[in-house]
Amino acid sequence: MGVVVQDIERADREIIRRFADAGVATVHEAQGRTGLMSSSMRPIQQDCAIAGSAVTISAPPGDNWMIHVAIEQIRPGDILVLAPTAPCDMGYFGDLLATSAQARGCNALIIDAGVRDTRDLRQMKFAVWSSAVSAQGTVKETLGSVNIPIVCAGAAVNPGDIIVADDDGVCVVPRQNAADVLAKADARLEAEEAKRKRLAAGELGLDIYNMRDRLKEKGLKYV
Amino acid sequence: MGVVVQDIERADREIIRRFADAGVATVHEAQGRTGLMSSSMRPIQQDCAIAGSAVTISAPPGDNWMIHVAIEQIRPGDILVLAPTAPCDMGYFGDLLATSAQARGCNALIIDAGVRDTRDLRQMKFAVWSSAVSAQGTVKETLGSVNIPIVCAGAAVNPGDIIVADDDGVCVVPRQNAADVLAKADARLEAEEAKRKRLAAGELGLDIYNMRDRLKEKGLKYV
Amino acid sequence: MGVVVQDIERADREIIRRFADAGVATVHEAQGRTGLMSSSMRPIQQDCAIAGSAVTISAPPGDNWMIHVAIEQIRPGDILVLAPTAPCDMGYFGDLLATSAQARGCNALIIDAGVRDTRDLRQMKFAVWSSAVSAQGTVKETLGSVNIPIVCAGAAVNPGDIIVADDDGVCVVPRQNAADVLAKADARLEAEEAKRKRLAAGELGLDIYNMRDRLKEKGLKYV
Amino acid sequence: MGVVVQDIERADREIIRRFADAGVATVHEAQGRTGLMSSSMRPIQQDCAIAGSAVTISAPPGDNWMIHVAIEQIRPGDILVLAPTAPCDMGYFGDLLATSAQARGCNALIIDAGVRDTRDLRQMKFAVWSSAVSAQGTVKETLGSVNIPIVCAGAAVNPGDIIVADDDGVCVVPRQNAADVLAKADARLEAEEAKRKRLAAGELGLDIYNMRDRLKEKGLKYV
Amino acid sequence: MGVVVQDIERADREIIRRFADAGVATVHEAQGRTGLMSSSMRPIQQDCAIAGSAVTISAPPGDNWMIHVAIEQIRPGDILVLAPTAPCDMGYFGDLLATSAQARGCNALIIDAGVRDTRDLRQMKFAVWSSAVSAQGTVKETLGSVNIPIVCAGAAVNPGDIIVADDDGVCVVPRQNAADVLAKADARLEAEEAKRKRLAAGELGLDIYNMRDRLKEKGLKYV
Amino acid sequence: MGVVVQDIERADREIIRRFADAGVATVHEAQGRTGLMSSSMRPIQQDCAIAGSAVTISAPPGDNWMIHVAIEQIRPGDILVLAPTAPCDMGYFGDLLATSAQARGCNALIIDAGVRDTRDLRQMKFAVWSSAVSAQGTVKETLGSVNIPIVCAGAAVNPGDIIVADDDGVCVVPRQNAADVLAKADARLEAEEAKRKRLAAGELGLDIYNMRDRLKEKGLKYV
Repeated sequence: MGVVVQDIERADREIIRRFADAGVATVHEAQGRTGLMSSSMRPIQQDCAIAGSAVTISAPPGDNWMIHVAIEQIRPGDILVLAPTAPCDMGYFGDLLATSAQARGCNALIIDAGVRDTRDLRQMKFAVWSSAVSAQGTVKETLGSVNIPIVCAGAAVNPGDIIVADDDGVCVVPRQNAADVLAKADARLEAEEAKRKRLAAGELGLDIYNMRDRLKEKGLKYV
Repeated sequence: MGVVVQDIERADREIIRRFADAGVATVHEAQGRTGLMSSSMRPIQQDCAIAGSAVTISAPPGDNWMIHVAIEQIRPGDILVLAPTAPCDMGYFGDLLATSAQARGCNALIIDAGVRDTRDLRQMKFAVWSSAVSAQGTVKETLGSVNIPIVCAGAAVNPGDIIVADDDGVCVVPRQNAADVLAKADARLEAEEAKRKRLAAGELGLDIYNMRDRLKEKGLKYV
Repeated sequence: MGVVVQDIERADREIIRRFADAGVATVHEAQGRTGLMSSSMRPIQQDCAIAGSAVTISAPPGDNWMIHVAIEQIRPGDILVLAPTAPCDMGYFGDLLATSAQARGCNALIIDAGVRDTRDLRQMKFAVWSSAVSAQGTVKETLGSVNIPIVCAGAAVNPGDIIVADDDGVCVVPRQNAADVLAKADARLEAEEAKRKRLAAGELGLDIYNMRDRLKEKGLKYV
Repeated sequence: MGVVVQDIERADREIIRRFADAGVATVHEAQGRTGLMSSSMRPIQQDCAIAGSAVTISAPPGDNWMIHVAIEQIRPGDILVLAPTAPCDMGYFGDLLATSAQARGCNALIIDAGVRDTRDLRQMKFAVWSSAVSAQGTVKETLGSVNIPIVCAGAAVNPGDIIVADDDGVCVVPRQNAADVLAKADARLEAEEAKRKRLAAGELGLDIYNMRDRLKEKGLKYV
Repeated sequence: MGVVVQDIERADREIIRRFADAGVATVHEAQGRTGLMSSSMRPIQQDCAIAGSAVTISAPPGDNWMIHVAIEQIRPGDILVLAPTAPCDMGYFGDLLATSAQARGCNALIIDAGVRDTRDLRQMKFAVWSSAVSAQGTVKETLGSVNIPIVCAGAAVNPGDIIVADDDGVCVVPRQNAADVLAKADARLEAEEAKRKRLAAGELGLDIYNMRDRLKEKGLKYV
Repeated sequence: MGVVVQDIERADREIIRRFADAGVATVHEAQGRTGLMSSSMRPIQQDCAIAGSAVTISAPPGDNWMIHVAIEQIRPGDILVLAPTAPCDMGYFGDLLATSAQARGCNALIIDAGVRDTRDLRQMKFAVWSSAVSAQGTVKETLGSVNIPIVCAGAAVNPGDIIVADDDGVCVVPRQNAADVLAKADARLEAEEAKRKRLAAGELGLDIYNMRDRLKEKGLKYV
């Protein structure tokens, strides 16, 4: 505790941008169904999809001091990712911190705890995925760390990892795998597009994916 | 496990349509306060009210194979109703399956588990009530059954039963009771309309329902 | 149980109105971080902020009889606040009761239980913060009390206390502290406005709040 | 609501007795992994295994009137199974009701709600599986039903079905399947005994069950 | 925040002792079914029943500093009652604090948060009812208050109120009502003893409480 | 997915043994309050404290195939640690697998999912910390991995890390830090012993830890 790592590596910005288009479900599949945060992480806005580099924060329960420290480390396009060291639903983050983060080029927060001023945040187009909404304020008494490896909502996050978030939840892509995962995500999107057309035309998945024989072999009975 | 019942009976389509207008709260009251799924079942869209015939799916946790099997059994106006055999919040259903279901005339899913691609589903006007939203993918390895009796979110559902769902939740009407329940629902709606006018005019429920004597008898004291 | 207190004192209406503008997060801070209900209390509508005088209801689980009794006690601008005597997610309140409450000048309900007819309530502009949405109906068999002290979602509420609610949750201000808390809330809003400008211009909280020395003293290390 | 079915069929008592010996995990497997109640149902005692015929109770939330009605329907060896019509953690059942049930030959309760006097119940050797322990009392105001089909903790229960319960939870065996399921359970117990000896001797499941080829085929890599 | 009230009034010690014998369920009934804490409060030991005067603690989440302050206020027979100002499952209290509290005559803790060293506490015969068990340590950075009114697990507690706790949970009796509630509890215990004998002899509650007519009138049907 | 790492490094066995004596709360403190699993992980037995080297398992929801694979990798003194890739409360592990694991020298399981045959496991002295108890069986259809880094109940675990578990929960000590953390734990135990004596003699923590000045400075008021 009590460490701030200042120079972290980030993925290529064009690659990051393309992750936002791919979306969480596709990216999660593309990297072998790993990296997904728990379904308790819900957006405070609707129909918003983002991607960015993680600036990680490990903070004590009910203490948001380290967010101020983290904001100084932000580079444009970064996303703040906060995991409390114990479960906590207090409102660590509101419109003042969002104003400060936005001034430095950050437009999103992932937090396994609470946020407040949610109406203001939506109006500012500051996107948030959180496990709670709460007006409960926090203190500034105890150190945490910035840009160390954390576990947030069940997913391991290293500083500089790529965060992808949309209405379905939040997924973490390790920085070093970014290009590879993106290629796989693109391939999936293309394949899905072809399937979507066939399904829309009324073909069945049973036939497109050749499932009938395997279902029969497993013993499925039609009555 | 491993059974697909192909020919199920369904209720009259005009009756089903009128259930959608009546709404969940009224239908639930009309059938003696039975058939309601748990309040953990939430819609992914707002201001949408539907009704249809249940095509039931019993699926293993984290395995969506049977949805493909069920889609072949759909007739226009049906609603897919999936209960996992153990609690599971994974995303069983997304935009490809919705495309396939829609191609066969189904526009809604009731699932005591997770869904994904929720933004796409809203855009497609494919309605969903679920206990979770999650991008987590599922496998296709183990058989379940289609069109057998299931328990979904605490409610017993038989194939062909009428599902009514709106912003308040999901209610199940046994097929054979449909006409009777609808008649009672209509009677309630009419009676409520009359009461609504009196209440809007400032009359009190205490007087409209003659509650004052019974309250006094039970011992209510005004101080 | 079984008591209705008829003449309760209420705070000044102009003061109450100004609490709605201040918002929950600010008011909660202004009164020393007390009075907040649990984050399980969620609004059924978005972007709505209100304040009013509490008419309190202590009701048995699954029994909404006392709401009818409470509506008679409403004066314009009041807010109904209901705590069940045991945890319950049933739908105590729907569009008919809302019609009756609105006819007497009440436009909001705070309930640590369920509501129903949520689409109708939104259309009527009747605001609700609840711990559940459920179509499940209730009975009218057992007495509770109106305008007695209650504990609602973890917060103590006395009749006549000021309720402030918005997208962030619900806060209770004891009636006798109203003017004092409002003055402190106004002072906070003013101070925040000045800070917001500096933060928006790119100044860091670390500098505005002189945090760097204290962080160093506590042992924060930059690496 | 408001129905008491008086003459229900029960399974053979010797068969029932042998289910208690087989245990929940084995019985659940023997009937194709169906009939298990949710893992939220926990025993108030340790190291107790029972089986008996279900006398079912559908009761309103917070109302235990129907338990008195049900006790009259008990025959020696029966087990009371109560499902509230909405989620409720109140204490429906305590030492007086247990005394009455025991006097009629019933020594166990399965309840998806709360119980109280748990120390007394343990001392009386009255076994309970419940979803809560709570001293909160209930009322006797509203009818429910006795010996109708219910859904308890996610499992469908018909009156006269066999209830099997031990430290692992609660399982329901439909009465008409009893002999068949028991035969399968016995076969499992025998097969398990043989495997247990081989495993205790150090043989691996990988070899006993011939898993190595299939794991290789699926792509498992040893590194 | 930041207040320690030093001289609080306590109830008569003989009265308090007799509450322990009456038990939570009886006391809760005797005071009109009020004062019960939520069923999330569970004992770390079995078969233990206590009563004592509340020394209340309002503490920040994850900060146990005020427990040290509170221990100085203990008089023999007191019980510590701690409510965090926001939900928190951290381990506020372990064997060192228990040693200190015991040295001053306190043998029990009620805490809507976590405790640790539970094995040691059981060996020391220091009784605990908590909402969690967790080894997670806390800090000593932020003030709270001692002996102010708090809400703990949904129940309002004033300093000096009588706490009654056993295997069924925790109940709070306002100090000024102690003698009255105890008299009612004693009357209940006596009445229950008489009923227990009749029930044990096989008489039915339906007859003892004259329920048959009222059930018939409400419409109960035997089939 | 689908990887088994065969040669993992383990910490010194004497060091591991001493961790069991230190206990979870002390070890967690000694390593800077990190490494603790969530408080949802509960033991199925009482008064049991263990330590061992982690053999990690990443398994699909409802699929226990990889446990068979993992058992082959066990060396005496190891502890199995299983994290499902999505939340799951099914019973992955029972007495047969425990027999097999015990035959290879493993006497404990940490699992963020369900176990079954809990009575048998207690009798076999096979210790378990789990997030659920459930008789629900699992399948053997989909690959997972053995001895890869996992996140279990919120804590990152690498194969070969030291697991410490007792009545308070489960803590993970990274293998490379073992000697250092143990030294700090020993120092804490010694210091605590001295404090325990002073506290037992009636000295206050306020005095032993010199808290009075700092409390005064923060503004604590005695009234």
